[in-house]
Amino acid sequence: MNTFVFTCGDINGIGPEIVLKTLNKISHLNKSSKYIIIFPGNVYRYAAGIIKPRFKLSVAHSLKDAFNCKTRICMVELPDYRMNIGKPTKQSGGASYKSLEYSFSLLKNNIADAVITAPVSKTAIYLTGINFPGQTEMFAHWCGVKNFVMSFLSDKFKTALYTIHIPLNNVSKLLNKKDLKDKIKVIYNMLAVDLEIMDPRIAVLGLNPHAGESGIIGNEEKEIITPVIKSLSRKIKIDGPFSSDAFFANRIFKNYDLVFGLYHDQVLIPFKYINYGGGVNYSAGLPIIRTSPDHGTAYDIAGKGIADESSMIQAYNYARLIVRNRKKHVKGKVI
Amino acid sequence: MNTFVFTCGDINGIGPEIVLKTLNKISHLNKSSKYIIIFPGNVYRYAAGIIKPRFKLSVAHSLKDAFNCKTRICMVELPDYRMNIGKPTKQSGGASYKSLEYSFSLLKNNIADAVITAPVSKTAIYLTGINFPGQTEMFAHWCGVKNFVMSFLSDKFKTALYTIHIPLNNVSKLLNKKDLKDKIKVIYNMLAVDLEIMDPRIAVLGLNPHAGESGIIGNEEKEIITPVIKSLSRKIKIDGPFSSDAFFANRIFKNYDLVFGLYHDQVLIPFKYINYGGGVNYSAGLPIIRTSPDHGTAYDIAGKGIADESSMIQAYNYARLIVRNRKKHVKGKVI
Repeated sequence: MNTFVFTCGDINGIGPEIVLKTLNKISHLNKSSKYIIIFPGNVYRYAAGIIKPRFKLSVAHSLKDAFNCKTRICMVELPDYRMNIGKPTKQSGGASYKSLEYSFSLLKNNIADAVITAPVSKTAIYLTGINFPGQTEMFAHWCGVKNFVMSFLSDKFKTALYTIHIPLNNVSKLLNKKDLKDKIKVIYNMLAVDLEIMDPRIAVLGLNPHAGESGIIGNEEKEIITPVIKSLSRKIKIDGPFSSDAFFANRIFKNYDLVFGLYHDQVLIPFKYINYGGGVNYSAGLPIIRTSPDHGTAYDIAGKGIADESSMIQAYNYARLIVRNRKKHVKGKVI
Repeated sequence: MNTFVFTCGDINGIGPEIVLKTLNKISHLNKSSKYIIIFPGNVYRYAAGIIKPRFKLSVAHSLKDAFNCKTRICMVELPDYRMNIGKPTKQSGGASYKSLEYSFSLLKNNIADAVITAPVSKTAIYLTGINFPGQTEMFAHWCGVKNFVMSFLSDKFKTALYTIHIPLNNVSKLLNKKDLKDKIKVIYNMLAVDLEIMDPRIAVLGLNPHAGESGIIGNEEKEIITPVIKSLSRKIKIDGPFSSDAFFANRIFKNYDLVFGLYHDQVLIPFKYINYGGGVNYSAGLPIIRTSPDHGTAYDIAGKGIADESSMIQAYNYARLIVRNRKKHVKGKVI
């Protein structure tokens, strides 16, 4: 029996609603799975007033309670946090952070197999005084893993990022051969093991306009990216660096299992445009399994019960798939 | 009577073919227009062997000849240049540059009203020893204009770029309030005059992931972009800075007449993905009118007669529209 955890996300955003909507849809489908949600009591009551739960729930107040929980759906109840729908606040940041922290404890103690995290506000978490670059980075930090990669999954295309939540001006400074090679290896292994794709093909994007146009517009392609691709291509199927605009214009991404990009907007603009409502964020390279929807807190529609849970359901589906694949993985496929 | 010039573009790419395909389609539609193409003689004969011209053509060898040309379609014949289909060469760079230079002479001497340029290879032009960042920059240089903006037009959405063909690492360094304000003004005036859009609405994208997330991921939004938007919003309809990925994911671009971005791939990835085959590149802010298709030389399919001329036809349609609008423009609409 597999156990999946859902965090509440920012309590002033759509997180709590879409968790309940998701449980309403999935909990009757997979009767051999258990679900733990981590919500402040008042937030659960508020959300349940908007989205009527179609499941029974027992309440836990400790790791031990959660572990021993007799019902298939269990809530780890956090203390109440003041809500202020539609706004990032210190209270909402505190609740979302606490829920994340608790979810990691459940994973670390093998009480849960995967966590699906609802969207948080970095601004709100910063208000609590915590240096919080993003959920991906936070889980990597807790796992003590430096070589991890933020990736995005969908049926249409999969992508991964070299840098994540850093100023655009720092992207080139952080680009180096060793890290690039290491991160592409993480991604290759993720495709081969977590997603069970045989002999996956990876496309790497250029950093500069027209992928540097043979060194006329920047040197990173010549000096860093091309040598790494060349070296890796002895072992795996990898091509590039591609000119990013032509790559998407000509739908070249359809020929690859994953598009490896170098910075946030380079891949998230096309990924979210093409997959809106169905994309999944996955932290690759960690010992634990964490997925999340690819959208934000959507403060503008919070509390109205109209938020679309499709991306959250996809995040759960990918978490299930990865739990299953990791359990049956035969060692030897990785590089 | 308006006169439109077509350059040959890189002679080893699809340029010559799509110019002939375009003339085959448009020259019978607009009998009150004249067309001048600037081709090496051998290139014209080669292309005409692939795409049979459905028009009559007279040949000119000087500006005066071209001006006095009696037929509606005229070719300014350049000397022969060696062809090597599918490859950027010094010869192909030389021919494409010569054709561009000639087209500017025709515009400067009021022999033509607008030029539609076929795709060139920067690499090929560099081989001739000319420092050539791009066609937009070249025409601006010839016009002696510093405050110009590369823009992209289509019915679906219009966009413009703060920086063009520079390494990604230099984008932030080049961003400053004065230039940003000046370039947005150029774009506003382009929309109001060249495209005759009443009271146009402009959206400005952020530079950093999540538009800097309130300064947590980079300061350019707080220090440069937001103050410029605030200052301009006293006079015009302008919003931002938007988080780029969410902006396109949520189709927010549909609410604006133009999306102003800060670097090449930020706007060209979504623009070309969404408009593939129909986007037009327009050099805004110049006294002359120059448009071009939004794709490259397509070396891989050159010489086969299968290249799609849709984007070239759209480039011609926008050039016609802009010629007409500029001629009827009543002073006073600009900022």
